[in-house]
Amino acid sequence: MVNRLIQTLTADKVSTRPSDLEAHGRDEGYPETALPEAVVFAESPEDVSRTLRLAREHGYAVIPFGAGTSIEGALVPVKPTISLDLGRMNRILEVRPGDFLAVVEAGVTRKQLNERLRHEGLFFPVDPGADASLGGMAATNASGTTTVRYGGMRRNVLALEAVMADGEVVRFGRPVQKSSSGYDLKDLLIGSEGTLAVITKLWLRLSPLPAEVHTVRVYFEDVGAAAEGAFALMGAGLPVARLELVDERAIAAVNRHLGRNYPERPMLLVEFHSSTPEAVQAESAFAEELLREAGATGFDAARTAEERTAQWEARHQAYWALVHTFPGRHYMITDTAVPLSEMPGMVRYAQELMDELGLEGNILGHVGDGNFHTIVAARPGDEYARAEAFSARLVERALELGGTATGEHGVGLRKRKYMAREHGPALAWMRRIKAALDPEGVLNPGKVLPDTEAG
Amino acid sequence: MVNRLIQTLTADKVSTRPSDLEAHGRDEGYPETALPEAVVFAESPEDVSRTLRLAREHGYAVIPFGAGTSIEGALVPVKPTISLDLGRMNRILEVRPGDFLAVVEAGVTRKQLNERLRHEGLFFPVDPGADASLGGMAATNASGTTTVRYGGMRRNVLALEAVMADGEVVRFGRPVQKSSSGYDLKDLLIGSEGTLAVITKLWLRLSPLPAEVHTVRVYFEDVGAAAEGAFALMGAGLPVARLELVDERAIAAVNRHLGRNYPERPMLLVEFHSSTPEAVQAESAFAEELLREAGATGFDAARTAEERTAQWEARHQAYWALVHTFPGRHYMITDTAVPLSEMPGMVRYAQELMDELGLEGNILGHVGDGNFHTIVAARPGDEYARAEAFSARLVERALELGGTATGEHGVGLRKRKYMAREHGPALAWMRRIKAALDPEGVLNPGKVLPDTEAG
Repeated sequence: MVNRLIQTLTADKVSTRPSDLEAHGRDEGYPETALPEAVVFAESPEDVSRTLRLAREHGYAVIPFGAGTSIEGALVPVKPTISLDLGRMNRILEVRPGDFLAVVEAGVTRKQLNERLRHEGLFFPVDPGADASLGGMAATNASGTTTVRYGGMRRNVLALEAVMADGEVVRFGRPVQKSSSGYDLKDLLIGSEGTLAVITKLWLRLSPLPAEVHTVRVYFEDVGAAAEGAFALMGAGLPVARLELVDERAIAAVNRHLGRNYPERPMLLVEFHSSTPEAVQAESAFAEELLREAGATGFDAARTAEERTAQWEARHQAYWALVHTFPGRHYMITDTAVPLSEMPGMVRYAQELMDELGLEGNILGHVGDGNFHTIVAARPGDEYARAEAFSARLVERALELGGTATGEHGVGLRKRKYMAREHGPALAWMRRIKAALDPEGVLNPGKVLPDTEAG
Repeated sequence: MVNRLIQTLTADKVSTRPSDLEAHGRDEGYPETALPEAVVFAESPEDVSRTLRLAREHGYAVIPFGAGTSIEGALVPVKPTISLDLGRMNRILEVRPGDFLAVVEAGVTRKQLNERLRHEGLFFPVDPGADASLGGMAATNASGTTTVRYGGMRRNVLALEAVMADGEVVRFGRPVQKSSSGYDLKDLLIGSEGTLAVITKLWLRLSPLPAEVHTVRVYFEDVGAAAEGAFALMGAGLPVARLELVDERAIAAVNRHLGRNYPERPMLLVEFHSSTPEAVQAESAFAEELLREAGATGFDAARTAEERTAQWEARHQAYWALVHTFPGRHYMITDTAVPLSEMPGMVRYAQELMDELGLEGNILGHVGDGNFHTIVAARPGDEYARAEAFSARLVERALELGGTATGEHGVGLRKRKYMAREHGPALAWMRRIKAALDPEGVLNPGKVLPDTEAG
């Protein structure tokens, strides 16, 4: 198989070097790893096509690989696999400011794109923290700190090009703000984690850089009160651009890791993006009033762009701060989302349960969307088993409340066991879709859908 | 078949009265009609299920019918058909203000829901003009005047219950603000025009009624200049809530039809929804400045809520005003959407082409989305053939520019002929989806997908 790949694609696009295999047999969050047979570094949709055809012919699986920043096991092989790395397909093909449109290859990362857009007064708003590839972000339906205002990948990907399991290169959707033409396969592929097609190109909706930005840290007595504050803001219909909760333990870890001196108290990070100074002042003053009523005990506004950037860097480094605080452990990030009114109770439940189970970790996340994470650092063995039990109980509670096992990280291998419970009879219809688009099961087998209905 | 339906569902749910058949064999915009064999007035998902099973057994087609307000022929039978009317399933099952959530049966109309929500300080924003059923709006992926700010049905339907072709009742999606769990069949069913499933229940995302609303009519010398003005506003990233173009002919027709005295000039209808008085003032002052630079010659702000309501009623009555101006004709509404920068040129092209072909009609629409309509009133025969040629040329131009044949009205029968050109190889994958979900072709056959690749 490797020889056939080299013959077809040339040797510089195919690697079996141990370091390459090792880097492509894991992700950033799943504890298990498994080596692929080879890594293909695709440079075009045709390379993707050829790889899929060969893999099908030889009975191999293909796992598309972007920047490797996913965390639920979507990248880990479960049978003989060719890892299909799209990192070389990293050209920004077109930027059309008047249409708020960028056309990019799948391997372009979000920071690379935003760097290019800076001088156009535009940005691509989806912000999962990691410098993920845009193809990977589409494949996992990524979202993040700005989703409460700008939406996630479905809203911000207008169209995409994908290579189907049989090797055909197909475009889904049109680069316009809206369309009601035909079946929405674009949104079906988004979030399918490489199990229905390999995304190779994206037409992205850009947003104007906000004229006015106001960022403030808001302190609370406890993490539940902070969640209540977030709920109060959402209820007032204020156009918050970011609304993040960070608990005192995450702040303490960040202070140590990055040498900061933020007050070590539960806080909300709130940001407004407005079109005029008057609007941003009025909105943030109203927000402050609501937050005070909800129990906020203090406010620190970012006074400069540097301070703002530093604050969001701190938020995004919370995971790595935990890793540095507790090195050599397994790290598990929970990702439930619940209806907004249930979110404060859910945050309190998570905190109590973490203490009850004697686990070390943080709570933080996108509370404006009802989605938050706990990050647990557990020693392999018993403690990791407790962390898994913790995750399972959060998911069960979320599902009881009408919520979801995964707000934004996807299913991968880790969340498959909840799919039957979350989706009920819909799961069988998802299997029909998989069978219709990838009848031979070439594309990332064993992911998203559980092997049996029992999970 | 009718007897079996009556046996299974009871006689009060099944009608073969000529008036019922006639009302269910047509829509509000497609010139051809055809009678169904019977109309079933379903009162539950089980009724829908039983109807689908019987129809399949007897080789009948089933066409789901909401409020009958669609316009592209989606409701017109092309083979022996049971029309499945969901109008009796009109209960608002739950409103949860804290979760910004309403749960409704598919036959609830948008006005019915908004009336119920008025006292909660919430509304359901998708506004196609007609008082459509929410199930029908989901089935056709409806959008409208507020989509530029609030999105269309995909963004505002969180989850739905549908009856599949084999009669199974299935829920797709979860009532949370976001989820990355499993394949997105919810969005696949939205916009599938009753060809993949019958939507019976919806979990809807509600929005807070804006604290501050500012509505203004902005006048221009010609319709192209008005379109340029809209483009200038969009480019500045102002958070417009509505941005509609109406040409001078539409205004004249509305003045006659509703007894109004709006200046008969091309205009933009612009609305801001803001959280504070200062914000709405700042945003609208900035907008006025941009519009003046873009050539606006006058502004009339709505001074009262009544004046604002009257203005939007006028906008929504433009179609009926044309019907009253030219009674007894066939009316055709074009629905292209193009990238934003192409929109002014496209509007000018439509106006010139309408004049060149000697057609009578109006231009209006959702220019903030790059989507606009022309409404043509043509005498049956030669003139209607010219109207069809006009529509075809607009679609061709839109497709050349990267746009779509239908921004929001859907495909139905009328737009099938453009599907191969718009979607290319994706069309064959849409067929696979249809075959996977409705292998026997019970659900609204002959719609959306053309009979052959040539259309």
